[in-house]
Amino acid sequence: MSLVEKGSVTSPKGFKASGIKAGLKRSGAPDMAMIYSAAPCIAAGAFTSNLFAAAPVVFDRERIAAGDAIHAVVINSGNANACTGQQGLDDARATAEKAAALLGCSASEVMVSSTGRIGVPMPMDIILNGTELAAKALSENGGENAALAIMTTDTRPKSFATRIDIGGVTVTLGGMTKGAGMIAPKLRMAPPQATMLSYVTTDAAIDKAALHAALAAALDKSYNRITVDGDTSTNDTFVALANAQAGNKTIIQGTPEFNLFADALASLAGRLAKAMVKDGEGVSRFVEVNVTGAKSDADARVCAEAIANSALCKTAWFGADPNWGRILCAAGYCGISFDPSKVSLDMQGAPVVRGGMDAGTPESELVKLVSEKEVKIDLDLGAGNGSFTVWTCDLTYEYVKINADYHT
Amino acid sequence: MSLVEKGSVTSPKGFKASGIKAGLKRSGAPDMAMIYSAAPCIAAGAFTSNLFAAAPVVFDRERIAAGDAIHAVVINSGNANACTGQQGLDDARATAEKAAALLGCSASEVMVSSTGRIGVPMPMDIILNGTELAAKALSENGGENAALAIMTTDTRPKSFATRIDIGGVTVTLGGMTKGAGMIAPKLRMAPPQATMLSYVTTDAAIDKAALHAALAAALDKSYNRITVDGDTSTNDTFVALANAQAGNKTIIQGTPEFNLFADALASLAGRLAKAMVKDGEGVSRFVEVNVTGAKSDADARVCAEAIANSALCKTAWFGADPNWGRILCAAGYCGISFDPSKVSLDMQGAPVVRGGMDAGTPESELVKLVSEKEVKIDLDLGAGNGSFTVWTCDLTYEYVKINADYHT
Repeated sequence: MSLVEKGSVTSPKGFKASGIKAGLKRSGAPDMAMIYSAAPCIAAGAFTSNLFAAAPVVFDRERIAAGDAIHAVVINSGNANACTGQQGLDDARATAEKAAALLGCSASEVMVSSTGRIGVPMPMDIILNGTELAAKALSENGGENAALAIMTTDTRPKSFATRIDIGGVTVTLGGMTKGAGMIAPKLRMAPPQATMLSYVTTDAAIDKAALHAALAAALDKSYNRITVDGDTSTNDTFVALANAQAGNKTIIQGTPEFNLFADALASLAGRLAKAMVKDGEGVSRFVEVNVTGAKSDADARVCAEAIANSALCKTAWFGADPNWGRILCAAGYCGISFDPSKVSLDMQGAPVVRGGMDAGTPESELVKLVSEKEVKIDLDLGAGNGSFTVWTCDLTYEYVKINADYHT
Repeated sequence: MSLVEKGSVTSPKGFKASGIKAGLKRSGAPDMAMIYSAAPCIAAGAFTSNLFAAAPVVFDRERIAAGDAIHAVVINSGNANACTGQQGLDDARATAEKAAALLGCSASEVMVSSTGRIGVPMPMDIILNGTELAAKALSENGGENAALAIMTTDTRPKSFATRIDIGGVTVTLGGMTKGAGMIAPKLRMAPPQATMLSYVTTDAAIDKAALHAALAAALDKSYNRITVDGDTSTNDTFVALANAQAGNKTIIQGTPEFNLFADALASLAGRLAKAMVKDGEGVSRFVEVNVTGAKSDADARVCAEAIANSALCKTAWFGADPNWGRILCAAGYCGISFDPSKVSLDMQGAPVVRGGMDAGTPESELVKLVSEKEVKIDLDLGAGNGSFTVWTCDLTYEYVKINADYHT
């Protein structure tokens, strides 16, 4: 796996970005961002599978399906432009047209993303003015500002980069992500889900099918195994843009170079996804749930997600309460089949359950183990070879506070 | 529907009950209860479908399957006797044997229920001594004490009764229930689920098949449509006991008397189920979610449960935030199919969404409506004639507090 380091969407060659204050957020925080490449980009995307897919998601899916070259993405936080009907679609298009005019490209070469409250018409005067400000602010060092501007209830920007060597040429991948609540992305490759917005840029030369395949594989190992609250948003978006400015020989599937690129993209997506869960709404503890020994990977996934989304497991994690009965309980009601008497459970590598019963590790010791900031739970169902891992978090007072009070 | 009033499991003729302090709870609160009828009872039961069904559930299922007459139920709070292996089964049996010896019946005529922490061996000295105390304390006025003793995180006992006239004879039904968290009972008639324990007694003469049918119908309209937190317990139990002491002509299926009895049981179960949700862990607001216009009742149920179990909907309800986008979002990701542009939503009878978009009712007005202690949400999907109603509640700081701290 490649080393993921500090960096941003402007780390790869030829990308500019910006983050500015358009005036959408009452708080006055930055709320619009732009990513731009003068060189045309191959694009791959994955979007929410929610039936109430937001207008910008509908708009962007069309861009991906049409196979248009992409030059820019305009992103706003503070309003989701979801459940806004034809007006919402018209507004997304008008935003793309505005950006295209400013950047000297076609509207079909611009993608649009929104996150924020659902069901509120877009204040287009603010959006169009913000698009102009964002275009003016574009800079080769703008990646960090963009990562700040796409935040909603996030507490910190989440932005990384990674570098690989492709035939002697350095290829860079940069990425940013936002999302803290309504996070349970079951991303589908054009179409995924959560108010998760993620963007990866790369200066790699790569063909469209290879970028698509690498993104699908990366999502399966990252975004599609995280959950904060089990709610899957109307606006989830993951876009990968490749502008071929590194000068490498074009990457195609079935080559060692493809594997190298795919690994790097998976590492970057993994780092972004984990960073998102750790910065989830009110999160105090990161929890990795590994289910093994299921009859199938699909069974293991159902079981791991039931545990990760159980309010009782999540509150126990908040309280640093080993309470393994709640974990077994969730496995027992999730709808898959296994023999309870064959179940083993470990926490932080310590035996907790053997043969469906208490393994005898003293509770005081377990409490210490689950008091760590990152907790690993291994559940073996003893029924087969299926396995799945979910990255999740605890459920805290702060989560309730944030979501009982949230009006952007 | 019959009028449900104050009363308890000792309201019907021939039933005694008790609630005593055995010493299982650190708090010193009452923690064992007993229900007893000298006359043998026809029994019907529904139990958790959790694979980790607790030992007393396994024991009681055998009683129901064997068709034994039942004289008594011994109930403890403070320990679930779940994930306790063969020892747990032996302990449940020993408890029944102790009660049988004290009451002068056979162990096969005694049922046993437990609720509390999972995975802790039963302290049998306390349980056997408590069984003796409970038998001694049996009284015709003991119903309220029993309802107190089965509580865990409940804040108040939940106990009601109702009376009907069967051919000139007054027949009484009494019931009690406990359960505040781990409540999402998908009760199956021998087998259901939640740490929900419920008991209905009646002095009706009714045959076994009729009691079973009436209970199944009652559960479908009550316990099987409630959810507090979506977690389905290892110990859920609903038991109905009929001792034929009223003197009515035996009720059989397909008669007006059966319909009368079934309606009364449904009314009583409905009252108990609603009382349980209203006393759910940390609950500040009761919410009824009605989904109509789905392609099928099954689709409507999936949709209503997704909304009722959504952390984002539940926290919005806590905050008296109409935030209808979260409700539509949950409907959109629940996995059923419908046309988003045909969706209508009402809150407390006021139009909120029409054609998948804001219906224009001022937010200030909606805030007022959803600030009530009981809120009614009507979602019409415009896709067919399927419907389902779920009774649920908000998600509060107090829920998190209770469950982050809960060690019985």
